[in-house]
Amino acid sequence: MTAMKEGVCVVHFWYNHEHCCWASNETTFQERHHCPQWQSWAELITGTSEGAFAYIVNFLMYIFWALLFSFLAVALVRAFAPYACGSGIPEIKTILSGFIIRGYLGKWTLMIKIITLVLAVSSGLSLGKEGPLVHVACCCANILCHLFTKYRKNEAKRREVLSAAAAVGVSVAFGAPIGGVLFSLEEVSYYFPLKTLWRSFFAALVAAFTLRSINPFGNSQLVLFYVEFHAPWHLVELAPFILLGIFGGLWGALFIKANIAWCRRRKTTRLGHYPVMEVLVVTALTALIAYPNIYTRMSGAELISELFNDCSRLDSSQLCGYQQVSLCVGNTLPDRPAGPGLYTALWQLALALVFKMMITVITFGMKVPSGLFIPSMAVGAITGRLLGVGMEQLAYYNHDSIIFKGWCSQGADCITPGLYAMVGAAACLGGVTRMTVSLVVIMFELTGGLEYIVPLMAATMTSKWVADAFGREGIYEAHIRLNGYPFLEPKEEFEHSSLAVDVMRPRRSDPALAVLTQEGMTVGEVEALVESTHYSGFPVVVSQQSQRLVGFVLRRDLLISIGTFVFICVVSSSQVVFTEHTPSQAPDAPPPLRLRGIMDLSPFTVTDHTPMDITVDIFRKLGLRQCLVTHNGRLLGIITKKDILKHMAQITNRDPDSILFN
Amino acid sequence: MTAMKEGVCVVHFWYNHEHCCWASNETTFQERHHCPQWQSWAELITGTSEGAFAYIVNFLMYIFWALLFSFLAVALVRAFAPYACGSGIPEIKTILSGFIIRGYLGKWTLMIKIITLVLAVSSGLSLGKEGPLVHVACCCANILCHLFTKYRKNEAKRREVLSAAAAVGVSVAFGAPIGGVLFSLEEVSYYFPLKTLWRSFFAALVAAFTLRSINPFGNSQLVLFYVEFHAPWHLVELAPFILLGIFGGLWGALFIKANIAWCRRRKTTRLGHYPVMEVLVVTALTALIAYPNIYTRMSGAELISELFNDCSRLDSSQLCGYQQVSLCVGNTLPDRPAGPGLYTALWQLALALVFKMMITVITFGMKVPSGLFIPSMAVGAITGRLLGVGMEQLAYYNHDSIIFKGWCSQGADCITPGLYAMVGAAACLGGVTRMTVSLVVIMFELTGGLEYIVPLMAATMTSKWVADAFGREGIYEAHIRLNGYPFLEPKEEFEHSSLAVDVMRPRRSDPALAVLTQEGMTVGEVEALVESTHYSGFPVVVSQQSQRLVGFVLRRDLLISIGTFVFICVVSSSQVVFTEHTPSQAPDAPPPLRLRGIMDLSPFTVTDHTPMDITVDIFRKLGLRQCLVTHNGRLLGIITKKDILKHMAQITNRDPDSILFN
Repeated sequence: MTAMKEGVCVVHFWYNHEHCCWASNETTFQERHHCPQWQSWAELITGTSEGAFAYIVNFLMYIFWALLFSFLAVALVRAFAPYACGSGIPEIKTILSGFIIRGYLGKWTLMIKIITLVLAVSSGLSLGKEGPLVHVACCCANILCHLFTKYRKNEAKRREVLSAAAAVGVSVAFGAPIGGVLFSLEEVSYYFPLKTLWRSFFAALVAAFTLRSINPFGNSQLVLFYVEFHAPWHLVELAPFILLGIFGGLWGALFIKANIAWCRRRKTTRLGHYPVMEVLVVTALTALIAYPNIYTRMSGAELISELFNDCSRLDSSQLCGYQQVSLCVGNTLPDRPAGPGLYTALWQLALALVFKMMITVITFGMKVPSGLFIPSMAVGAITGRLLGVGMEQLAYYNHDSIIFKGWCSQGADCITPGLYAMVGAAACLGGVTRMTVSLVVIMFELTGGLEYIVPLMAATMTSKWVADAFGREGIYEAHIRLNGYPFLEPKEEFEHSSLAVDVMRPRRSDPALAVLTQEGMTVGEVEALVESTHYSGFPVVVSQQSQRLVGFVLRRDLLISIGTFVFICVVSSSQVVFTEHTPSQAPDAPPPLRLRGIMDLSPFTVTDHTPMDITVDIFRKLGLRQCLVTHNGRLLGIITKKDILKHMAQITNRDPDSILFN
Repeated sequence: MTAMKEGVCVVHFWYNHEHCCWASNETTFQERHHCPQWQSWAELITGTSEGAFAYIVNFLMYIFWALLFSFLAVALVRAFAPYACGSGIPEIKTILSGFIIRGYLGKWTLMIKIITLVLAVSSGLSLGKEGPLVHVACCCANILCHLFTKYRKNEAKRREVLSAAAAVGVSVAFGAPIGGVLFSLEEVSYYFPLKTLWRSFFAALVAAFTLRSINPFGNSQLVLFYVEFHAPWHLVELAPFILLGIFGGLWGALFIKANIAWCRRRKTTRLGHYPVMEVLVVTALTALIAYPNIYTRMSGAELISELFNDCSRLDSSQLCGYQQVSLCVGNTLPDRPAGPGLYTALWQLALALVFKMMITVITFGMKVPSGLFIPSMAVGAITGRLLGVGMEQLAYYNHDSIIFKGWCSQGADCITPGLYAMVGAAACLGGVTRMTVSLVVIMFELTGGLEYIVPLMAATMTSKWVADAFGREGIYEAHIRLNGYPFLEPKEEFEHSSLAVDVMRPRRSDPALAVLTQEGMTVGEVEALVESTHYSGFPVVVSQQSQRLVGFVLRRDLLISIGTFVFICVVSSSQVVFTEHTPSQAPDAPPPLRLRGIMDLSPFTVTDHTPMDITVDIFRKLGLRQCLVTHNGRLLGIITKKDILKHMAQITNRDPDSILFN
């Protein structure tokens, strides 16, 4: 469908340009991009592909298809599954931390996301399919879970399956099963026991091999941008690699700030009321600017593939437009001076870089499925390639200077611009997402060589440090905060000396904690208490006077129980009893309502003197939603996850009410 | 030193046989194992290397050196650092789970372990250096930690550094940085936060690159048995791979049972009193049996390297003694019928297999540094190679049968015996250690090809399932239990419906829990209580009557405080006070001893109705040593890690007193 924007294969209409001409017998290897079977729209409509008129016809058809695809995408999302938009990773992180978003992983979301993802990518918008694939995999996992009682009933088990699904998503997106598992471990999952590690690994491998047997690109590789480099790198090159890291970090920090500002504007102003119009305008803008430049006209994955590619002897692409030098020895290609083709390419790349940087900021967050991996990598790959070609020319013309002497003699192949592109891509992706190990391992699996790990790691680390200096959050955490999801960041360390007593409710000036007593309250009193508050649970104590904690009852369970028993013989004056033995009561009193069965007999407690860093740690590690606070065995108050998030917002001088919990 | 057992290089005495002849100019490639510079002991002493007498001289010198090396190793361990023996991994697992073994990671242990590891490996015993390298790395890390206050003071931070060190140890042992990190995560570490993941990865990479720059084997590879395969594998071959997995699992289960039985015998009978004699006897036995067979005479790593190796055109080794067939096309070597050389090799390998299987059982656990990776891999590699050659011959002679038709035509290179050896090695190592992901990743990093992951995974999984059917514990957990270390297995799920009240002390028939009251007790009473019990801590309650919990005091802190204040003005009748405000007391009473400062104000509590699976989970995740049990706000009892371990032993029908805590 991406190719359909430019033309159509008259023999097999489902082939893209490349496959169409491969299937043709009339093309030679040199002329492999031109074959009679592939016809541009101008050729089909006007019969010629030359001249300004043909160009305009092609241009208009390009914009027409782009608008059609993006309109279909946004319309389908709006009409059937509003949750299908975005990359889905922030929401999956939140779900894995214990929050429930109903329907987010349902079958409608799955179907619509698959269809609209294809449409959105084909429309030429600056977005990728890698992030949404994680969401798609999680939807599949969630739907499969419903078939098995063990997983349908147990939230925790289901979350383990979702962790494995996230690994599978990245595994098929990058052909990197180990990297996928580490991505799930590092970036997505909240709780990742060893059992899950092994199962995720198994799932990711099966996924990668299924994909390989389907062979989507016809070259027995899993991804479009698999690379093989032959030349080693030199220690001096670490300097440009670190430069790329700094660029990646700066770009990451800037992108997050700009994107969040734009998304907040969309959320708070009238812009947010016209999502379809927004998508259409951005698509039109993208198509208008992208069409004249071949590096923006091609899809993001193709661009990255071309930038990662090392120029071989037979390469006809513009990026390999070097002057022919007859110094070649054997099979290696020495560094050569740049020719006019390459200079043109560099200009076009520089323009593409500026365009990609700007358009991605406003694209990510629109109401279509949109991943961030490919655009981020594209920005980095362009920068890297530009720097790489620059280094190559520097080395060619100054091979006797101090820097290059000793490792880069004349006619040697010392600089690989493709490697620079790869390092740049890793740096930018690292700056935006703050991934570290998983990113390096994904790139390692793309190249398959241990020796390129050091450049990748140097760039990724620099990028992370630089970006962290401007703000500790990655793009996914920033979006979680923007949307106000109750997510307790597992990576951040809590470094403040407050105690549990400072965070718990009720505060000193508030009315006392709403509690139930284990006996002595009537159904009417309990109903009044439940209705006068909005809490989702109530502690049960021995008596109002002693405040000794017995258990914890959920509001929902309480309402259901009372509602059920009202039909039988329970009246408003019946006693509610949480004890094991029914207390003696007047013989004419109505029979008591016994609710011990719905009470959680082992609620979590901490003392009022517990430091908050330990409390936060307990919440994270045990995945709690609330915790009761006691002092010398008496119940004092309660701390919920929201209280902790508000407290953390307070101490970092953010508005605690920005945590909206929509 | 391993080579010294057989002879000496007269020009550079520190060269081994191979390096000695490489350095010589007088050898051709074909004759690379014979050069005048390398002289066997018979040549040096008697002047000839021919005949029975020379053989006997060589044999005796071999045994002499073996005994000398092993005697030095065991004597040094006995005299200076008893902790230097064994692989160290069980102890490091225990240390990382929170137990402290003083001196286990000290400088003496480090120095002696390095020296005796070299001696033990050179002595020709059936042991490897890979496991002890993890211990060596942890010692280095621990000693480095002492230089920085931040790590010296904080146990938890130090344990994170130790986790990274374990990754480094495996990284240099196998040249597998990612595998090393996953090994630390899966097998060694107890608590592995994401920060540690990234730091371990960094440390492991730096280690691998430092090793590469040293270039220990002169071939720019990190390990002796780096492999490159060229032929792909076929789906039919999964059957033999799974067979290898079954063998690996059976061998793993058998080895663990036999080794633990032997170690228990050593622990309980008089055998344990003569460690030096034991080592010498086993060394002599090993040398006597190993010398006549070239596959047992060579070191374990060399053997594995030879077995993993794919026969190339110029290979002169016995294992490549195929009949020459003139079907060769291009560079690939087709399957060929076995020649007499290969048949001899197969017999020798079969004998070596039986020998290795038996001798490893009694070797692992002796009082010398001994790793298990190399012997386990050797057993698997021999089995795999035997099966691989068998399959190859089967395919050669039956290439028209149903099984081989379609993928293995005559003259094709369809079976790679080296791959079978590798899969077998992974299966046996997996059976013994129950590693899964880390094992597959280590092997993946050795081959560098994604396509061999499926055979490796199939074998590793089968091996783990088969071995788990005979007993859930890996060799390290078995040794932890044998030695009675207080280690709470993080992988095992606790599936029993007992409650906290069933596990806590005091039991129903026991005397009441020893508690302190926050006021009202005198120094004399406290001292009497502390001396009459052996508990390491005491809960503090409001009063004996209410039993409302205030805090928890450690025995050690209590004794130190009382001991310090006795010198000032505290007498036996002084009151001990844990409250914030001093209670009013008679004007002539001695001044009270105020101890609120040493009390832990936030002790962990669970209610008596908490299910034990949740309690065990809390202990594991929060790394607790004890936890108090309450009922309706009153203190009921205490659960310690030992109570949990005893309870777990009880429900699996083991003797709870086998947990010795020596």
